[in-house]
Amino acid sequence: MASMQRVLERIEAQFAAHQARWLDWLRIPSISAQPAHAADCRAAAAFACDALTAIGFTASLRETPGHPIVVAHHPGPGPDAPHLLYYGHYDVQPPEPLELWTSPPFVPTISGGTHGPCVVARGAVDDKGQVSMWLSALTAWVEETGGLPVRVTALIEGEEEIGSLNLDAFLAANRDELQADVAIVSDTNMWDIDTPAITTRLRGLVYVEVELTAATRDLHSGMYGGSALNAANALTGALGALHDAAGRVMLPDFYKGVAEIPPELAADWAALGFDETEFLHDIGLGDPVGEAGRGGLERLWARPTCDINGIWGGYAGPGAKTVIPGKAGAKVSFRLVPGQDPAAVLDGFKRFMAAHVPTQARLAFREFGVSPGIEVPAGSRFIEAACAALAEEYERAPVLIGSGGSIPLVGSLRRLLGLDTVLMGFGLSDDRIHSPNEKFNLRCFHQGLRTHARLLGRLGGG
Amino acid sequence: MASMQRVLERIEAQFAAHQARWLDWLRIPSISAQPAHAADCRAAAAFACDALTAIGFTASLRETPGHPIVVAHHPGPGPDAPHLLYYGHYDVQPPEPLELWTSPPFVPTISGGTHGPCVVARGAVDDKGQVSMWLSALTAWVEETGGLPVRVTALIEGEEEIGSLNLDAFLAANRDELQADVAIVSDTNMWDIDTPAITTRLRGLVYVEVELTAATRDLHSGMYGGSALNAANALTGALGALHDAAGRVMLPDFYKGVAEIPPELAADWAALGFDETEFLHDIGLGDPVGEAGRGGLERLWARPTCDINGIWGGYAGPGAKTVIPGKAGAKVSFRLVPGQDPAAVLDGFKRFMAAHVPTQARLAFREFGVSPGIEVPAGSRFIEAACAALAEEYERAPVLIGSGGSIPLVGSLRRLLGLDTVLMGFGLSDDRIHSPNEKFNLRCFHQGLRTHARLLGRLGGG
Repeated sequence: MASMQRVLERIEAQFAAHQARWLDWLRIPSISAQPAHAADCRAAAAFACDALTAIGFTASLRETPGHPIVVAHHPGPGPDAPHLLYYGHYDVQPPEPLELWTSPPFVPTISGGTHGPCVVARGAVDDKGQVSMWLSALTAWVEETGGLPVRVTALIEGEEEIGSLNLDAFLAANRDELQADVAIVSDTNMWDIDTPAITTRLRGLVYVEVELTAATRDLHSGMYGGSALNAANALTGALGALHDAAGRVMLPDFYKGVAEIPPELAADWAALGFDETEFLHDIGLGDPVGEAGRGGLERLWARPTCDINGIWGGYAGPGAKTVIPGKAGAKVSFRLVPGQDPAAVLDGFKRFMAAHVPTQARLAFREFGVSPGIEVPAGSRFIEAACAALAEEYERAPVLIGSGGSIPLVGSLRRLLGLDTVLMGFGLSDDRIHSPNEKFNLRCFHQGLRTHARLLGRLGGG
Repeated sequence: MASMQRVLERIEAQFAAHQARWLDWLRIPSISAQPAHAADCRAAAAFACDALTAIGFTASLRETPGHPIVVAHHPGPGPDAPHLLYYGHYDVQPPEPLELWTSPPFVPTISGGTHGPCVVARGAVDDKGQVSMWLSALTAWVEETGGLPVRVTALIEGEEEIGSLNLDAFLAANRDELQADVAIVSDTNMWDIDTPAITTRLRGLVYVEVELTAATRDLHSGMYGGSALNAANALTGALGALHDAAGRVMLPDFYKGVAEIPPELAADWAALGFDETEFLHDIGLGDPVGEAGRGGLERLWARPTCDINGIWGGYAGPGAKTVIPGKAGAKVSFRLVPGQDPAAVLDGFKRFMAAHVPTQARLAFREFGVSPGIEVPAGSRFIEAACAALAEEYERAPVLIGSGGSIPLVGSLRRLLGLDTVLMGFGLSDDRIHSPNEKFNLRCFHQGLRTHARLLGRLGGG
């Protein structure tokens, strides 16, 4: 433990450099969804690759049909040491709408906040901030001790925000190279800034775009109104039927396989004292939506949902244009829980749409990711080590929580590599990920970095 | 009638010049809905003003809070002559989507068609083509005879495509100056290229934009899905309820005051042999929509409708973005028939939306035009003269038809100036007005010009 203490002291001494590297990474607009930013994605990958090479990893960019994947290996003290697979992603969500940012999304800016200074930028936390913490922890260990106390493989992809389209094939094709004892993923939240957390439940995701075509062109609503099918009328007619008045999703068999949460987990969550009223008040909302008669954390962590993520059709410019749109479309996604079959939900959505639009409406679907809900088994020695590292840093025991978000990678790691995952993240619920003015608290970054260093020490020296 | 024959001969001799002036006018992108084209609107107004001045009118641009109105007067043969008020508009619809045009929308291009060559351009027919015909008829009379056989006032506005926002106030403020015996409006269609028509029914219009605000920003659908209100879910939920399964509009009292059409009119329309299947087939559609159990022309000319003209919200770019939109909006319009109260429909829509979204959703409405459905009294001497002029030019009697479109001006002329209107237009149903590749057949332009010249002669010499 003496070396761990020295590593922690080095982190303090070098903290400005760790922070600076994180901010440099944020300056690269690695927006995976937008083809114009493909070169930026590659640059962000190279940035991580160089950082790993600099501390003794054998690192390279691995090509995919999309954005490249960074893979890097460090032998640690030898073949008998525990082997950790660190996963993260270098891509970020599109920053739009730009006009709502108080500073440019790719110019990281220090801003004050309730819990001290934050870095505001797209990707500040998701996931460049989270990855930077373990990258800096590895750096501190190598710089202080000349090596790592464990074997490490790093896997940093560039398509997490667009559904990790090429990751599964890559994992399957590189099974042997990617073998490890456990995966460490830092892409989740703490309970609050004082209370660390391990996430043991994740929702899955089905994301699909639907385009409805009616007439071969936009039509004059006077000349054709009352005779010609309106694509926007037809689309909203179907999408408007996706929920019933009690907030339940109306796809046939949508809730098939969805289990009630165990009473002891329900009790643990109740003890967290989640204040949904304040949670919603912070974003300008009043009453919760979602299924009537269920608790807030239950709806967020253990119940499936359906959200329209975008919708378009016809004339959206200034003033009036009296057209009947020939086309209309929407992006629709479902958050899934363990027990639901993502393929069945996708198929159910397609059938639902076909059944709810006139037969002459032509529907086209594009899929952007399909992943199941996940439960992580608690109680492994890796989870125990992570809990101990968190408890030591924060001087209080972490809580076991769920997350409403999706990390499809966790399911893929289990299915394709046989790996369990420790989900240890340092985000806060007000970090505005995927929204304008995404931020990460400096204090979270600092303590997260230290915790990652402690976990390396515990697993290496234990 | 000798002078009328000379005028017709002059039209033939000068036809190239008449056509050239029409095409020059089309080159001005006078898109009233788009503020960036305000100067183009003014240029299009000046173009018409100059053309009228050149043939002896006292013409000027009259300022409004929006685009200017052209007003011009010609004394004709003296104060006892019939006094005609010609109305038209120089503004055009936005040309978007630009990628669907086969030639640039403001570069008029001659293109072949089923009934001979056409001019393809935004505004080719609506309304620069239609106005150019009477402008050229007036020009031919002045050039051939040194004057006009009737008194004429010309009124050409620039906001017809955005709801004639400032026209009523202008009419009310200039009642005395705009007095006439009848209004002549050329903004409607023939029945087909061989069959001229007088339009005696017009639908009215209520056009309204609705914006729904939920959260103060877009949210991560994982972190908030199941708790936070989704603006697009809420908006589609309400818009999707606007029609029932039988195609009826669900606003309370929407059909109040809507009368069945008289049996003799129904018989006349049935005799037209409208082929709705072909009408829809031409635009790639199969079954008609609209109210079940009613005929095609009845649905188009004598039944009210509701169409979503545009819808937007959330992320519409490439790929996937897992957001819950904070805002979503739509443009929605209603075509009205005589007997409906436009103000009541507008109010009913607002109340319907409020009743169909969660109470915490904030709704904002913007209105873009409110006009009632119109029935024009047939049988006046002006209608009779128009019928005679049409019959002479086409060698067959015109038919009395309806139009599904709206010309709010017709209601305003009656209400504010006490004027009846002769709706004599030369468009065809396949002219693609408001759509890409709007066109006007040269043969329609030619015969329409000649008919306008004949009407002037009949009213002046009769």
